Amino acid sequence: MATNQEEVKLLGDVRSPFVLRVQIALDLKGIQYKFLEENLPNKSELLLRHNPVHKKVPVLVHNENPISESLVILEYIDDTWKQNPILPSHPYQRALARFWSKFIDDKIVPAAWKAVFAVDEKEREKNVEESYEVLQFLENELKNDKFFGGEDLGFVDIAAVFIAFWLPIFQEIGGFQLFTSEKFPKLYKWSQHFVNHPVVKQNLPSRDLLVAFYKSCYQIVFG
Amino acid sequence: MATNQEEVKLLGDVRSPFVLRVQIALDLKGIQYKFLEENLPNKSELLLRHNPVHKKVPVLVHNENPISESLVILEYIDDTWKQNPILPSHPYQRALARFWSKFIDDKIVPAAWKAVFAVDEKEREKNVEESYEVLQFLENELKNDKFFGGEDLGFVDIAAVFIAFWLPIFQEIGGFQLFTSEKFPKLYKWSQHFVNHPVVKQNLPSRDLLVAFYKSCYQIVFG
Repeated sequence: MATNQEEVKLLGDVRSPFVLRVQIALDLKGIQYKFLEENLPNKSELLLRHNPVHKKVPVLVHNENPISESLVILEYIDDTWKQNPILPSHPYQRALARFWSKFIDDKIVPAAWKAVFAVDEKEREKNVEESYEVLQFLENELKNDKFFGGEDLGFVDIAAVFIAFWLPIFQEIGGFQLFTSEKFPKLYKWSQHFVNHPVVKQNLPSRDLLVAFYKSCYQIVFG
Repeated sequence: MATNQEEVKLLGDVRSPFVLRVQIALDLKGIQYKFLEENLPNKSELLLRHNPVHKKVPVLVHNENPISESLVILEYIDDTWKQNPILPSHPYQRALARFWSKFIDDKIVPAAWKAVFAVDEKEREKNVEESYEVLQFLENELKNDKFFGGEDLGFVDIAAVFIAFWLPIFQEIGGFQLFTSEKFPKLYKWSQHFVNHPVVKQNLPSRDLLVAFYKSCYQIVFG
């Protein structure tokens, strides 16, 4: 628990799934923190100083120590505050959690992004198909548990927030059917459990805000 | 230490810097393992079964449990065998080690790769410049210590094996000057300490083999 001696700040933007990962993890641990909303077209001096390499949110600042990259931040949170662990305790299960979280960042997010922001319908079809293929790997990973981590929300669940909340918005904007209960029954069911978990629910940004924002991105690109 | 009950196998290819990371980590821990050389144009049934997602080496198989992605494997090795830790013990130092290792994979390796396999000289110049910029971040991270981890070889050092051993070969093949003692005095000095560390030295593949292999890749692309 953050004591009076501790200062925890999060530089973020509520429209970012990577920022939401950190918000969920901090809340699961019961850590009080100050959320500093960045205006990304006009980055703060604080952001540039704390993340000179990528100049991106999220940045967690714990007692003046800045940490960037959302999965690195999740590891830090779990290393620092031991209550309600988000990584499993067994090394092999930890490795699997890290593997799938990396897979989400390396394969699923870029594929879905390309599916929305495709230059034409042919390109979109190809990218939707590619997204379908990579999502299928994750579908197969879900057993009959509520979450990837079993009965409790864990590392992979938090990493997968993009799939549960952003992907449905992306397909609405892009006008394609990808992440549906017919195509991904287990993953879809997981997403419902996920967005209704009390800690997730209280941190989700407004759906309308996201739709409006990403629609405007889309329109700027495609007119 | 691997006991009689334990079986550790590594599916690899000695020309891969990602495989070498795992070899160095296992040797630092004193873990005996069986190296199974893959013939990548004709992947083994074992590789396809153990890494169905990426179908790539390295794959570590510990008591029948397969683990892929070299940085995930390094974490697993450190979680499983506690002797000679490769990650620092303090959470913030651990976060920094993870951040820089990810930076190497996300920024440095792709930039250097594009510098060698550029379509023309103009493209090469641009990519060499980009590689220079990202390497500069790492140069600035090295203090006056022998290794990134201080006096002992650690996680970032192992992750950076590509820079110490592959990058000099790449620039020789591509005919450009990037990683020199003038441009990167600290990083260059580090690379000399690194390749002369006994555990690294005994695991390095033949330089001639690498030059011949990557030169043939280069010639196939550029004639």
